[in-house]
Amino acid sequence: MSRTEYLSENVYVVLVYPKYQGNIGAVARSMWNSGLRHLIIIGNRPDDEAFARSMGGRFILENAEIYDNFHSIIPKFNVIAATSSTASSNEKHFRRLPMTPEKFWEEMSHQTGKIALVFGREDDGLRNEEIEKCNYFISIPGNPEYPVYNLSHAVAIILYVMFTRFNPPEDIEIAAIAPDHEDLMLKNVMEILRLTSYPDHKMRNTELLLRRLIARSRMSDREYFRIMGVIRRVKENLQGSLENESDNQRN
Amino acid sequence: MSRTEYLSENVYVVLVYPKYQGNIGAVARSMWNSGLRHLIIIGNRPDDEAFARSMGGRFILENAEIYDNFHSIIPKFNVIAATSSTASSNEKHFRRLPMTPEKFWEEMSHQTGKIALVFGREDDGLRNEEIEKCNYFISIPGNPEYPVYNLSHAVAIILYVMFTRFNPPEDIEIAAIAPDHEDLMLKNVMEILRLTSYPDHKMRNTELLLRRLIARSRMSDREYFRIMGVIRRVKENLQGSLENESDNQRN
Repeated sequence: MSRTEYLSENVYVVLVYPKYQGNIGAVARSMWNSGLRHLIIIGNRPDDEAFARSMGGRFILENAEIYDNFHSIIPKFNVIAATSSTASSNEKHFRRLPMTPEKFWEEMSHQTGKIALVFGREDDGLRNEEIEKCNYFISIPGNPEYPVYNLSHAVAIILYVMFTRFNPPEDIEIAAIAPDHEDLMLKNVMEILRLTSYPDHKMRNTELLLRRLIARSRMSDREYFRIMGVIRRVKENLQGSLENESDNQRN
Repeated sequence: MSRTEYLSENVYVVLVYPKYQGNIGAVARSMWNSGLRHLIIIGNRPDDEAFARSMGGRFILENAEIYDNFHSIIPKFNVIAATSSTASSNEKHFRRLPMTPEKFWEEMSHQTGKIALVFGREDDGLRNEEIEKCNYFISIPGNPEYPVYNLSHAVAIILYVMFTRFNPPEDIEIAAIAPDHEDLMLKNVMEILRLTSYPDHKMRNTELLLRRLIARSRMSDREYFRIMGVIRRVKENLQGSLENESDNQRN
């Protein structure tokens, strides 16, 4: 079982007295975007509005566990992580230092057992007696003037950090123009340099510099063909002028 | 000005024909969570529902710029990044390979000029002719079984990656070529086009394309001066040949 599969089975999102049905649905959708499936809701039950917003995460709502109070779920988990809504004055008094989502998932790299991510009420966060039950405290970095994330956005961000940590994207190659296109462009530019009697002692260095620049430019096909049109036109104009000159000399 | 302040002033979120007012409001809130303030909306206008959802981002909606069509905003930007909703079959045909948000912001580390993050319709994404105007393509990694993020969640994640990349403030600034250098280079290239009797109807489009390409190239000073040397030489040769031609005609 990969680490991702392990987390998918063992990380639970816990919503503590969520107020807005739209948020509940959006949380379910966010969870499935990152491959999580286990949702616990304290003190509320999803209704039609939540289901409408859940989209591909509908099955998560259908299977959500509903509890009357937070304390009864504590024994299920090895790790219980509170998440901060800095709006809540309660949470400001929480003495445990907050950690970023990145740091939290680093700590979870080899964690066994079940992990709960606990999200408080939209307006009032978690109460002191709830926070005391948690052994981690995650805070999402944000604009110091307005760090108060919407509930489902907080879930989305924390789970995105989890997903990318445990599913590192294979180094995706950036779209680049094909190497033979690059060569052809460079070849044409170098012909232009020769047509302008570019100094020989600079030629080699400039060629290297241009090759790097072209490789770095990551042109789309459309850009490539447009630029090649310009280059060909310049070259032909310069060739034309050379022919004119030799005509002049013959005259 | 720190890099964060620079981005705060120069990164725009562009919503292309968003359908749901709730999403528009949630996007504004997400933007302010990450310190962005400039929102452009194509084809829709925020109503009471959007304002209710925007919370601390209300001023962003109040100041949002509204346009009738996507094309009219293109000239404002040096970088235009499409974001993928993998739901859209249009976007699957886009040949540019997608990059992760992390990779995108890495590329933007030294970018100058204005940057647009373009988000398509909730149900149908961006159309081909819209994608063609974009020079980057961001895709958010997610559960392969359901990678379709809600609009405002996609915004939140991409901006969170930006925020955490450029904060903390010990992030070091590295010089890119100065904007007036970029302008001077573009001006000289456009003069070359005119000297080659470049077709008028292509001129404007090619100028935009070149401007973006130059902005994207992130030349060092050494590269800039070397390339400008080449450009000046080509220009002088073309000017010389025009003089020759008029000499010929006088002969």
